[in-house]
Amino acid sequence: MISAITLDNIEHLAIGSSFLGTGGGGDPYLGSLLCREAIAKYGPVPVISVDELRDEDNIFIAAAMGAPTVMIEKLFSIEDQHRAVTTLERFLDREASAIISAEIGGCNSMMPVAYAAMRGLPIVDGDGMGRAFPALQMTSFNIEGVACAPLTIADEHGNSVLYQTTTGLKAEELARPVAAAMGASVCMSCYPMTGAQARGAVIPKTLSGAVAIGEAISLSSDPRTPLERLVAALRGHEYYKDAAVVFQGKITALDRDTSKGWVFGNCSIAAMTGSETAELQFQNENLLVSVGGRLRCVVPDLVTIVDLETAHAIPTERLAYGQRVAVVACSAPPLLTTARALEVVGPQCFGLDEQYIPLAELIEDLI
Amino acid sequence: MISAITLDNIEHLAIGSSFLGTGGGGDPYLGSLLCREAIAKYGPVPVISVDELRDEDNIFIAAAMGAPTVMIEKLFSIEDQHRAVTTLERFLDREASAIISAEIGGCNSMMPVAYAAMRGLPIVDGDGMGRAFPALQMTSFNIEGVACAPLTIADEHGNSVLYQTTTGLKAEELARPVAAAMGASVCMSCYPMTGAQARGAVIPKTLSGAVAIGEAISLSSDPRTPLERLVAALRGHEYYKDAAVVFQGKITALDRDTSKGWVFGNCSIAAMTGSETAELQFQNENLLVSVGGRLRCVVPDLVTIVDLETAHAIPTERLAYGQRVAVVACSAPPLLTTARALEVVGPQCFGLDEQYIPLAELIEDLI
Repeated sequence: MISAITLDNIEHLAIGSSFLGTGGGGDPYLGSLLCREAIAKYGPVPVISVDELRDEDNIFIAAAMGAPTVMIEKLFSIEDQHRAVTTLERFLDREASAIISAEIGGCNSMMPVAYAAMRGLPIVDGDGMGRAFPALQMTSFNIEGVACAPLTIADEHGNSVLYQTTTGLKAEELARPVAAAMGASVCMSCYPMTGAQARGAVIPKTLSGAVAIGEAISLSSDPRTPLERLVAALRGHEYYKDAAVVFQGKITALDRDTSKGWVFGNCSIAAMTGSETAELQFQNENLLVSVGGRLRCVVPDLVTIVDLETAHAIPTERLAYGQRVAVVACSAPPLLTTARALEVVGPQCFGLDEQYIPLAELIEDLI
Repeated sequence: MISAITLDNIEHLAIGSSFLGTGGGGDPYLGSLLCREAIAKYGPVPVISVDELRDEDNIFIAAAMGAPTVMIEKLFSIEDQHRAVTTLERFLDREASAIISAEIGGCNSMMPVAYAAMRGLPIVDGDGMGRAFPALQMTSFNIEGVACAPLTIADEHGNSVLYQTTTGLKAEELARPVAAAMGASVCMSCYPMTGAQARGAVIPKTLSGAVAIGEAISLSSDPRTPLERLVAALRGHEYYKDAAVVFQGKITALDRDTSKGWVFGNCSIAAMTGSETAELQFQNENLLVSVGGRLRCVVPDLVTIVDLETAHAIPTERLAYGQRVAVVACSAPPLLTTARALEVVGPQCFGLDEQYIPLAELIEDLI
């Protein structure tokens, strides 16, 4: 485990969380600029493990909500995040003692660090997804019984909205149209937790996991290719250990539709030699990949498109015709694949017909 | 002025506010049932004049938001209204000392009475529209500088949402999609005011005005027709005194579209003899009427379609082919026709090309 997020490992966190974003969660590059600025100004952010939390701690989430295609152009500010969190603090009449990421994958790994720096608070080594998901209710917090509401969102014009809903799904249904009306990109806080609640509901060690993955990809002194180093790092990890490159090729077709506050679409990849193709489907995040008609990975297991040379993840909104890519799949944290979890984050929750099959079975021949 | 809303005058209030609803605001009949029940259970509701308010009084609005076509089938409950108001009270940390209607026209005249009965609080003789309007920012409160937010809405499933917005228009933009997502009919509280703020921003005496109009329509001992009694009552009123029947005929065409949480449409009325026709346009409320191509009334002045026999107003959602009707126009309260007010409730705010012309000029030949 790492003891702090500093100017030295912030880039590793960005690169690793981009991989765990499975195409979604927004490009962490922009968030990393915000983090650099905040850490330079306020100092490194201490990392606290889930085990170290006291029962009476108050853990607050800092997060963005919206369409990644919009987030590229409509940047976030810590002030808007502060308004989202303080509105929640004021309503609950309790003050944050630690900040946590709801979603370690993508941009939502970065804002909590920048915000924790500004508040002078530690950040918890863990999150609610161990990856990225497109909807509010799709968290281990929800799966393990922590209420999503009260939830707050704030825009860049000084407007904020506080939700008290009976379910996480309802919070999602009522917050999404407002996020869209606010410009499809807003700051948010939700799932306020005590330390005691966090202990069973957080997926631990994902912040340090993301840093380790980013470090492996970046370690130029290692003679292996970045892609080889990435797969090796995943195979050495507690959660992501069933891992393989399921396809390599170039992008030949791409279909993206930014609507209802999300980006939906498909991506086709053709082999460099031969006629085999891979087909990916996404809703902000990649949901499944099949190669030559054979299912190779399905949500909640992770599938990410990475650059063939650098092994850097390519977020959905940056995919382009002709890119040479590898498709990397790895297993999800166990909290996401229980029967109870699959009712919240399984293929059916995304309107897919496929049943969940553990990745280890789907890529048996590759590992 | 009346001293209380009782079981004896609640029907007059319903009939009068239906007329002032200018086709919108929801059918007060359903609300009057709720009021009857509440007054029977909790007793009459004392009416307090704007002049009697103390500076430090806390005036809270009770209101419904949504599409009247939906409200016919999805009934309101006082409990949901209570959740909307108490969420606001909790957030502001102050308690209501009086209840007020935001909109005297239609159903929104009734819920505040029922809710005041339940809370054991007086109701203010006044409102923010002196009629009905389709949007949150269209109030004298807003025109006179009272902030719309914080605003709360609550549905029948235990969900509530609190808005802090920089403008009333923004509150409208962000609350409307949630009201639609909640089923196009929700309870609301907004424009929380002190007594000092209320004094300049409330349109006074509209509650007693609505009762007086309803009483005139119902006064069967008077030998004149209900329509004659209605016009006479309007002409005797402080605000509504420029008043006339601008057309009589039967409905020959009707076009209604319930979308985005509103009901938009047009209504054509043909003369019983001769070929003259009247054309009305509405967005929840009637916006304008022209007769034989001649403009006869335009918002914010009031135009209401009433039954030719009973002079009872016909809400937009109950209009039907073949109904025999009169179209009655009357002047708006002066607070709604200032230059500042026309920027908020004038014809351009509804996307109309027509300029506002005071009703007295448009119906000069009829009064």
